[in-house]
Amino acid sequence: MESMMIYAPIAMAIVGLLFMAVKRSWVMKQNPGDGKMKEISDHIYEGALAFLNAEYRLLAVFVVIVSIALAVVSYVVPTTHVLIVIAFIFGAIFSALAGNMGMKIATKTNVRTTQAARTSLPEALKISFGGGTVMGLGVAGLAVLGLTLFFIIFFHVFMNGVWEPTTIDGVTMSPQELMTIVLETLAGFSLGAESIALFARVGGGIYTKAADVGADLVGKVEAGIPEDDPRNPATIADNVGDNVGDVAGMGADLFGSYVATVLAAMVLGNYVIKDMGGAIADAFGGIGPILLPMAIAGVGIIISVIGTMLVKIKSNDAKEAQVMGALNIGNWVSIILVAISCFALVKWMLPETMNMSFFGEGLQEISSMRVFYATLVGLVVGAGISSVTEFYTGLGKKPILKIVQQSSTGAGTNIIAGLATGMISTFPSVLLFAGAIWASYAFAGFYGVALAASAMMATTAMQLAIDAFGPISDNAGGIAEMSEQDPIVRERTDILDSVGNTTAATGKGFAIASAALTSLALFAAYVTFTGIDGINIFKAPVLAMLFVGGMIPVVFSALAMNAVGKAAMEMVNEVRRQFRDIPGIMEGTGTPEYAKCVDISTKAALREMLIPGVLTIGFPIAIAFIPMLFGMGNMAIAEMLGGYMAGVTVSGVLWAIFQNNAGGAWDNAKKSFEAGVMIDGEMTYKGSEAHKAAVTGDTVGDPFKDTSGPSMNILIKLTCLIGLVIAPILGGHGNEVVASETSSEEVYFIDAEGNKTILTEKQVQYIETGSTMVEGDNLKDKTETVVEMLKNDNNNQVTANVTITKTVDGVETTETKTFTGTEEEVRAQLKDVEGMKIKIKDKE
Amino acid sequence: MESMMIYAPIAMAIVGLLFMAVKRSWVMKQNPGDGKMKEISDHIYEGALAFLNAEYRLLAVFVVIVSIALAVVSYVVPTTHVLIVIAFIFGAIFSALAGNMGMKIATKTNVRTTQAARTSLPEALKISFGGGTVMGLGVAGLAVLGLTLFFIIFFHVFMNGVWEPTTIDGVTMSPQELMTIVLETLAGFSLGAESIALFARVGGGIYTKAADVGADLVGKVEAGIPEDDPRNPATIADNVGDNVGDVAGMGADLFGSYVATVLAAMVLGNYVIKDMGGAIADAFGGIGPILLPMAIAGVGIIISVIGTMLVKIKSNDAKEAQVMGALNIGNWVSIILVAISCFALVKWMLPETMNMSFFGEGLQEISSMRVFYATLVGLVVGAGISSVTEFYTGLGKKPILKIVQQSSTGAGTNIIAGLATGMISTFPSVLLFAGAIWASYAFAGFYGVALAASAMMATTAMQLAIDAFGPISDNAGGIAEMSEQDPIVRERTDILDSVGNTTAATGKGFAIASAALTSLALFAAYVTFTGIDGINIFKAPVLAMLFVGGMIPVVFSALAMNAVGKAAMEMVNEVRRQFRDIPGIMEGTGTPEYAKCVDISTKAALREMLIPGVLTIGFPIAIAFIPMLFGMGNMAIAEMLGGYMAGVTVSGVLWAIFQNNAGGAWDNAKKSFEAGVMIDGEMTYKGSEAHKAAVTGDTVGDPFKDTSGPSMNILIKLTCLIGLVIAPILGGHGNEVVASETSSEEVYFIDAEGNKTILTEKQVQYIETGSTMVEGDNLKDKTETVVEMLKNDNNNQVTANVTITKTVDGVETTETKTFTGTEEEVRAQLKDVEGMKIKIKDKE
Repeated sequence: MESMMIYAPIAMAIVGLLFMAVKRSWVMKQNPGDGKMKEISDHIYEGALAFLNAEYRLLAVFVVIVSIALAVVSYVVPTTHVLIVIAFIFGAIFSALAGNMGMKIATKTNVRTTQAARTSLPEALKISFGGGTVMGLGVAGLAVLGLTLFFIIFFHVFMNGVWEPTTIDGVTMSPQELMTIVLETLAGFSLGAESIALFARVGGGIYTKAADVGADLVGKVEAGIPEDDPRNPATIADNVGDNVGDVAGMGADLFGSYVATVLAAMVLGNYVIKDMGGAIADAFGGIGPILLPMAIAGVGIIISVIGTMLVKIKSNDAKEAQVMGALNIGNWVSIILVAISCFALVKWMLPETMNMSFFGEGLQEISSMRVFYATLVGLVVGAGISSVTEFYTGLGKKPILKIVQQSSTGAGTNIIAGLATGMISTFPSVLLFAGAIWASYAFAGFYGVALAASAMMATTAMQLAIDAFGPISDNAGGIAEMSEQDPIVRERTDILDSVGNTTAATGKGFAIASAALTSLALFAAYVTFTGIDGINIFKAPVLAMLFVGGMIPVVFSALAMNAVGKAAMEMVNEVRRQFRDIPGIMEGTGTPEYAKCVDISTKAALREMLIPGVLTIGFPIAIAFIPMLFGMGNMAIAEMLGGYMAGVTVSGVLWAIFQNNAGGAWDNAKKSFEAGVMIDGEMTYKGSEAHKAAVTGDTVGDPFKDTSGPSMNILIKLTCLIGLVIAPILGGHGNEVVASETSSEEVYFIDAEGNKTILTEKQVQYIETGSTMVEGDNLKDKTETVVEMLKNDNNNQVTANVTITKTVDGVETTETKTFTGTEEEVRAQLKDVEGMKIKIKDKE
Repeated sequence: MESMMIYAPIAMAIVGLLFMAVKRSWVMKQNPGDGKMKEISDHIYEGALAFLNAEYRLLAVFVVIVSIALAVVSYVVPTTHVLIVIAFIFGAIFSALAGNMGMKIATKTNVRTTQAARTSLPEALKISFGGGTVMGLGVAGLAVLGLTLFFIIFFHVFMNGVWEPTTIDGVTMSPQELMTIVLETLAGFSLGAESIALFARVGGGIYTKAADVGADLVGKVEAGIPEDDPRNPATIADNVGDNVGDVAGMGADLFGSYVATVLAAMVLGNYVIKDMGGAIADAFGGIGPILLPMAIAGVGIIISVIGTMLVKIKSNDAKEAQVMGALNIGNWVSIILVAISCFALVKWMLPETMNMSFFGEGLQEISSMRVFYATLVGLVVGAGISSVTEFYTGLGKKPILKIVQQSSTGAGTNIIAGLATGMISTFPSVLLFAGAIWASYAFAGFYGVALAASAMMATTAMQLAIDAFGPISDNAGGIAEMSEQDPIVRERTDILDSVGNTTAATGKGFAIASAALTSLALFAAYVTFTGIDGINIFKAPVLAMLFVGGMIPVVFSALAMNAVGKAAMEMVNEVRRQFRDIPGIMEGTGTPEYAKCVDISTKAALREMLIPGVLTIGFPIAIAFIPMLFGMGNMAIAEMLGGYMAGVTVSGVLWAIFQNNAGGAWDNAKKSFEAGVMIDGEMTYKGSEAHKAAVTGDTVGDPFKDTSGPSMNILIKLTCLIGLVIAPILGGHGNEVVASETSSEEVYFIDAEGNKTILTEKQVQYIETGSTMVEGDNLKDKTETVVEMLKNDNNNQVTANVTITKTVDGVETTETKTFTGTEEEVRAQLKDVEGMKIKIKDKE
């Protein structure tokens, strides 16, 4: 059975997807209501489709461009395989598919929830949560299915499915080295997923807020028609926006996190095997530590299925507490089951004790139980950050009450209070988070950090179900209002909506925590991939890049916020035009061109995404390649890029927490006025001056929490992923790649296991030129480092004579250095020699 | 002459202070006006005194507590000298003196400026700028005087004023080592200055905004009396606040920066000497690289005197452009003169070529010209960041016009636009800044970075003169208005005020740039002091601390903003009480109790400072000492603390730029309405809806730009200074402190120069215990590392047998390691051995 374990995650993903299909057809069979209800719902569905079509057209172009670039890189750089292009394309397709699926089901479920709420609250919950379940299982199932499938394919292509040295293109490589290539190629899948997520999240965020503001300004203010009135051409865009932003954006975000987390853990698992001597004897073909994260992800899907089945209420008179309780039961049971299965899987799949190299402390013996403790850390921090988020943004909590009080003295004080709340919420969040890094690393190194993230992400399907249920209920309430249902219907959907608001906030906390841990795991994988000694911010260029990286999330947020403003103005103009040009539109006899508004919102969103996108993708690439043009060494560049990644991650996490929580707090401060709040001993309601101040705060909070804030998650993940994809260009695969040149001019690799392999001419050239990748006669600037290793006569001592020949603009200079010691010590010192690409001349 | 160079900065500081005294008596001799003018001015002066008295009472307590703590530490830790306490106290006194002096002259100059403006604009400029000059020269003169004086004293106490080994307490130490103790003790002066600056800046910031908001809410809104009406009890507090925040706060801030920059450059100069073999033969007693930063600072004072003399206009009909031009001439001439004198001083005082060790690249030969280039980088970045600040916050510039446009759709969009402007302004600022780090380091290592900061700071007196002239003119305008002068008087002061607004913005840019470069220099000094290998953020605890450090400025800002809100409410209650209880107050027959409002504002400000202060001071101390309790090694702690410092610096710089520029932009967007702005083709003025939205934005911007934003400067400098003061407790002075134990159980130091000295028993104990500082029988946990150095027979090879004996909870474990190579190589490797506190047994 153990040897088939590699296929188990696929099987579990398929089970999850089958369950999803069953649930989906059950939801679709529910009564979609009639008349106006159905009409409104159909408009939203069509709008969503229009958005998807426009988005996919644009994204297809992007995917083609990136694919070509990746193909060129994989042709030029021998350590990158062209299959990465295929992986990238499928990553993009799977991510788009997941978002598509989620958005479609959400737009179908809302009206059915309204219909069910006409008779029964338990039924309404069952349907809305059912829709969420379809979305959650779809995203998680596709993520596990895609990642596992491509892993198996690449494992067979590069390694014939076994952990043994293999010969490719005449070069024999160690299994370690081959697995690194497998995982680097697999990183393409993650890159594809995360790129699409960037557009989905940021584009969706701009879209939803542009439509929202545009519809309100012309419809409510200028034309004097109510919110969500079907005569308003932007109304459908507005409702589509809710689904685009909250449902599809979150789905793509978590799809990306899921894939990236598992991938990073697999990369670090490969290095656990390396630390244990390059091979382990286990029942899983020697790749237990690599399979474990996939296994946890697969089991997590099954657990989520169980968890979703526990979410139900019985009484038609249930209140928020009961609904919340039902969700909590499902959630907590899932988390506990994940903890139990992590224990079992770790026990089963990992060697009882492992060697892991800890930075600066050398190899340490780690029992598998410590890996389990690391997964517990992940589960605790996931729950912890959700609670912190709930505290700072929850209705009736102290911070919200304070903002409400401050609203009484005007918008200015309301804004200050909201900003301060968001800012101060970073305190417990960051402390929790720093504690999690520390603890999970102390338990099991960066493999522990990655597995902490994996365990947390195992309940993704459940989390997403809880999360997607919110906007579905929100839309259901809107449909109830628009189609003039009995007040009891709205009351019932309001109960669901109110619970949905809370889960939305905790969901955002979960998304941040997952993104942050994922980024750290990717960061660790990057450092290990490139083989650098660490990232030393005492080196000025690295420190400079830490500053630049820290600045990126701030500028990104500003661009996203400005984009919302610009896109909203375009929407305003289009709505004005339709009111003017379409006859009978105000009387309800002319049909507004909904699709045009949807198209404007879509195009504006995707166009405005350009600069933030270029910023995100362009900066790490520029940092990697511009210094190369100036002849900087690859290791120095790799360290700088690492500093940049750390800057983006630290600053990105801070700004994500700040913006999401400030936005959430303003939103709920405003909502507090709906039920009435006590200010200075007086009950204050909607329409008061204090409420107007709170509305202003919410206007500021909208792009914070729905556009720039959530984008931070993807910004940091994508930055780290791009670093990981660039890693093979910069680095030495983490093995000591030393080439040995004998007198006959044949050049060998000696990998970490001591295997010698002949290099192809292209590979030699790459090694010889060190920091440049150019071929043929284009080698104007090159650094050739020749190491002559001489055996001394006593004590196993060797002497290494290092000759570094630098050619800059055709001028050649030569420098020599000498190292003495045992071979191991000398090799360690040679690591610091420029370029790390060295040829070793055996003593003749 | 060269040998007397050490006294030159003192002489120049005294020249500056004498010039200041002359200028001061000239200003004081000017006509202070009469009647109401004088009355208002006197009230402001008395209020300022009241604030100073209250502040100094509280700060005296703080100084006593910290002094006791420092004394205890210097008793326990043998590498810290008790003189640090004296230095600390004087640093605090000098800083307080500088703030005091500036605030007094500012409150005396304002009314004289008003009086002069009744007849002549050139005269008004001469007086207001004269007041600024007094402030600038006072601050800079005291800084150079105090720092140089204490350096000379300590240089004589510890080293008898010569660069030679000296015996203290029976231990002979190398000059390198002794100079390190001199500079560590001198760090106390800087710590004292910066601590007072923290209170002055943050307390002042809370004070001014609390008084401002309090006075407006009750006076303008409730009682319906005009702004600055003398019947309003809070009006004096409000005017005092302007001086407290803008004048004294900025003065203390720059005083601290000036001292810290020069100190950091001196520390790094000491390491330049180390890299050159421990001694250089120059005409300056062998300490040229250490004296250079002081010399630049001293010359900078003389240059500033010249610069201030160039600021004058002739025509009584001059406009803003001419006034700005006059200031620019003074400023640019100063900068150019600094560049020229840097060239001369570098040529004169530094060896023609130096060795500097670059991280990871070993020793490199650096010509003194490259140090000069580094100073140019400092001058360019200072000017560059000022221009960037002006662009993002200047009246009539594109970003401001955009915020004005966005005000037409309400406060929400105004706020979003302002936030986005502040955020996006980090882009050019950080790029400039990262470029400066990179370039100055590339030219001359971290010594280059520190000298870039020193050169930039050389014009501090001039910058401060330009900066203080702004609030003086502002107050002068206020007095003109209140005392009902001819409109022409207000017109003239308005011209000065308008120019002052621009210089205030650029001054803030200068303050940020100086704080940031200073922090980097301190950071570099810290790393070198502790002797750690760098700060590797790939180590999980270091990364965790990078996150925690990044969070501190955010939380600090939130606390400061909340403090403003709380303090303002207290002010409101007191003003209400006085209106109610004092008979005849509204009729002008009863005198309001101004001092009570001033007292409330002062007490509230200082009380509210408590938590931010504890956060700033407590966190680095906690990070240093809590892990010690758990037995973590000193080097690991030093690296963690370094990560924390980097986090605070990166995040602090970002949040400083963001908050200052957003606040400045909102302010000027509001001011734009005074002259009228074109929105959608229509001229819009004060009182319009758009203007109201802009006022709301300004309310949010006030604490941003006057409280939390400027505090960031001090937060980052103080954090790095605390690190520097803790450094000797953690680290090994940057020299390889290796102890050699002979068979007779005597223990020697071998310092970097190879000098052997016998250690006292206390010192041996410290060295033996490595990570713990406890004495006597309290040594439950200890790590003893014994290195036996054996000479091999061939090739100068040595073998080092390392025995590490760890005692944890009384259980002893032993580990052995062996290193072979030349003595130099082996020593390099020994650096990595835990604790770095090792004993070397000579071969018997």
